[in-house]
Amino acid sequence: KKEQPANIHHLVEKIISGSRLELAQGITLIESVRKQDQSYAQELLQKALPHTGASVRIGISGVPGAGKSTFIETFGLMLCELGYKVAVLAIDPSSTVTGGSILGDKTRMQNLANHPNAFIRPSPTSGTLGGVHRKTRETMLLCEAAGYDVILIETVGVGQSETAVRNMVDFFALLALTGAGDDLQGMKKGIMEITDLIIVHKADGENRKLAKRTVREYKQILHYLQPATPGWQSTALPVSSLQKTGHKEVWELIQAFKEKMLESNFWKTRRQEQTKSWFHDMIHDRLIESFFNEEGKKRVVSELEKSILNSDVTVTAAVEQLFAKKV
Amino acid sequence: KKEQPANIHHLVEKIISGSRLELAQGITLIESVRKQDQSYAQELLQKALPHTGASVRIGISGVPGAGKSTFIETFGLMLCELGYKVAVLAIDPSSTVTGGSILGDKTRMQNLANHPNAFIRPSPTSGTLGGVHRKTRETMLLCEAAGYDVILIETVGVGQSETAVRNMVDFFALLALTGAGDDLQGMKKGIMEITDLIIVHKADGENRKLAKRTVREYKQILHYLQPATPGWQSTALPVSSLQKTGHKEVWELIQAFKEKMLESNFWKTRRQEQTKSWFHDMIHDRLIESFFNEEGKKRVVSELEKSILNSDVTVTAAVEQLFAKKV
Repeated sequence: KKEQPANIHHLVEKIISGSRLELAQGITLIESVRKQDQSYAQELLQKALPHTGASVRIGISGVPGAGKSTFIETFGLMLCELGYKVAVLAIDPSSTVTGGSILGDKTRMQNLANHPNAFIRPSPTSGTLGGVHRKTRETMLLCEAAGYDVILIETVGVGQSETAVRNMVDFFALLALTGAGDDLQGMKKGIMEITDLIIVHKADGENRKLAKRTVREYKQILHYLQPATPGWQSTALPVSSLQKTGHKEVWELIQAFKEKMLESNFWKTRRQEQTKSWFHDMIHDRLIESFFNEEGKKRVVSELEKSILNSDVTVTAAVEQLFAKKV
Repeated sequence: KKEQPANIHHLVEKIISGSRLELAQGITLIESVRKQDQSYAQELLQKALPHTGASVRIGISGVPGAGKSTFIETFGLMLCELGYKVAVLAIDPSSTVTGGSILGDKTRMQNLANHPNAFIRPSPTSGTLGGVHRKTRETMLLCEAAGYDVILIETVGVGQSETAVRNMVDFFALLALTGAGDDLQGMKKGIMEITDLIIVHKADGENRKLAKRTVREYKQILHYLQPATPGWQSTALPVSSLQKTGHKEVWELIQAFKEKMLESNFWKTRRQEQTKSWFHDMIHDRLIESFFNEEGKKRVVSELEKSILNSDVTVTAAVEQLFAKKV
């Protein structure tokens, strides 16, 4: 299944024409660690590039138990029924630790997966966070070339994954549960300030009233904070995937967001900034990686660290020593 | 005034014995851009290191007009009268832009400056932010060796300066003005989440009532947010430097903070993490600096950036190209 494509040109044409089989093959190339595959993948992406950029890129995060899969399935199905093509990708740096992937459960989103307009890609999450980003970003581009109108990038709130997703999407939504204001304390530092919309999920049954109160509380807090997107007041909405209410409002809000951002040109500006940051992050990663990969460098740095903490050497002198040795 | 010290050993002894003249000379060495001076400065710091670490390091920020100097003068004088030795340093990356330094006004803090227990150092802020950090951190260490019990590091809220200060202090306080909740919107993104205490300043006269309300509002918001320091509930206090009220409460709070952090050992852990981060930040800066200083590198990167934004090349391929050329 990882066979080299005889003809990248043929592959990209099939992808652009909308074939899910070839799209999956293309993503497998992107995810491959083989040198030759990586070279094919770049050739493929190069040819796909002119066909990218037309989708709405949406990041979705939330605490475990917030019902991310249920929301994405219901939201995705609604969009598919409206005629949109929807791709669901995932970043889950935790799966290497916990052994379970965000999309590991095969029965997840079965209804969405079966819809002809949907494409769901469980992402293998081995490798560094940087590597995972590259794969997700490139997979997103390939999905766009394949004509997907909406890309949903799902992440669990582990480490830097939310910031990583924020840096590759147009719109970032956070799924939260109903509850008193105290529940907000469980929120990750800085998460609200990268969020364009807080979806108060499971707003059904006895929870409905509480959900409305939680929405009000979140709105108040968001009002105090700096907006995640200049010119956009981050807000909150109640949603029930059980009763299928609120998804329409979420989509309308995202469309209003897009319109506003297109007007101010921030839509394009942000994407350009994101691409430039990605480029510079990769340069930085490469520099640091190749520095620390030098024979014995990690040991020297760790020894200098000890000397510094032991007050045997100043930080500046340690850095001087480190770079003097390099020459 | 920038003469080379004949004897670093003599200089450090005078500094440790508490001579302000030699302390000022030592800081001048730290701030000097001359290679020889820098080497002297490291020798000096090396000898001073065993005498560092005993102070309480306090960062203070706030919007222009919040009354930072007035607060620091009143607070500093109170501490001096209590028998503490107080050093005031500043980080102001804006001064190179605006032409005016945070401590440029010679008449600022005149009463504090005249107190025998106080040492005020206007920091020249030319150079990169990284360079400014190094100088401030090293100046702080030298002040500690000189027996200063409290180091106040003042910063204006420009660019990354607050995060930089947060990363070199034990306790971070933010000066705010009274006002309705809406005023919080003027706050910088993420600033509340690095703050241990919000000082609602100018809580006097007609403002007193309003100040109390503002304190309550801030407390509520801080309660929702993740704490800046694990195990510490960030809070707010009303202070009037005009009526000299609230400074005692601020100091008591800082002492309670220190006690709690010493108990949990986070006091030491945070300082060690800060030192390690400083070391690694300097390594990263050096790597990136020397990469971009290579002949023509900036031009190549900027051209690749254009090609990327133009969809002529993928990000990954551009990085490959950049590092292939290097060999």
